[in-house]
Amino acid sequence: MSNVTGLESDARVVRTQNDVLRAALQLLVEQGWEAVTHARVAAAAGYSRATLYNHWPTRQALLHGALSRLADMPHATSTGDLRTDLVAELIAYRDGMAEHRLDRALAVLIDLAASQPEMAPVRDRIVADGEGYVRRLLGPVLPPERVEATTLLLCGAVLQAALLHGEPPSDEMIKLTVDLVLRGVAP
Amino acid sequence: MSNVTGLESDARVVRTQNDVLRAALQLLVEQGWEAVTHARVAAAAGYSRATLYNHWPTRQALLHGALSRLADMPHATSTGDLRTDLVAELIAYRDGMAEHRLDRALAVLIDLAASQPEMAPVRDRIVADGEGYVRRLLGPVLPPERVEATTLLLCGAVLQAALLHGEPPSDEMIKLTVDLVLRGVAP
Repeated sequence: MSNVTGLESDARVVRTQNDVLRAALQLLVEQGWEAVTHARVAAAAGYSRATLYNHWPTRQALLHGALSRLADMPHATSTGDLRTDLVAELIAYRDGMAEHRLDRALAVLIDLAASQPEMAPVRDRIVADGEGYVRRLLGPVLPPERVEATTLLLCGAVLQAALLHGEPPSDEMIKLTVDLVLRGVAP
Repeated sequence: MSNVTGLESDARVVRTQNDVLRAALQLLVEQGWEAVTHARVAAAAGYSRATLYNHWPTRQALLHGALSRLADMPHATSTGDLRTDLVAELIAYRDGMAEHRLDRALAVLIDLAASQPEMAPVRDRIVADGEGYVRRLLGPVLPPERVEATTLLLCGAVLQAALLHGEPPSDEMIKLTVDLVLRGVAP
């Protein structure tokens, strides 16, 4: 039961958290995770350090918050047609690489999880969120080990192109990978 | 036409280069590319800074040298059977991740190429070398765009598991990805 004052302050909290985590994610993709400190994020977002410590008591919590915004990346809406939906979801993922610098965020996340083992669960949760959309499309039509293999193949192809070739795959290449894999798993 | 002295000094040069680049690659995977400076690599390898500057006049050259050692990672020998050879090559790649910390080296390479654009050609050359083994197996049996898609899928699946799940794929998972993809490209 919130009163009006409660609602206003809830809205203010949400706005503060959004402002701060947006600034933190921007620092992270532009300058790496070492740049994500309470002092630098507070300065970039225009809030006091005390406010930041209040919401995120530790640096891990602040990094986690920034990275959890990756879960808000756009995803495709389902049409019910598996091929159409997989292509749309992988194109949305590819576009996130180009438009939201998701490629930089993933590179930072990989480095962070490797050098700070306590961040590995954060990586796992974010990756599980991202892959979840693909897995949910495949789950109803394939046995579990084929869901796993197909998810690794399709998400991996986008990752390989974006991070190792430095160029996310074209629409045509995404369609080709989906068609090859769906043909491979067809009964 | 080398005389005996020439051969001895050639051998010494090769040994020096091997010692230094091994130390440089180790620093790189353990502490990131920022650690790969002439001073720190010289100290780690037990050579003078002057010797290092003589072989690698710039930091870029030194980084390039360290990363080019990734091209020496073990690869499978061909048996002539496509499925066997693809599985063996991807298992060798996966083992490089586990045994030679190739996963760390790739994470550093991704970060380096993104933050220092002049290193992108180095990344491209190393990735092309690595993928080359897979492409050469597929080239004789598939049209070019399918070679590209299949290479992204198979190398990408190993990358996705190793870097985003933090656990390189099992032999069984590699075999499953190869079987699915080969079924997908079969005439």
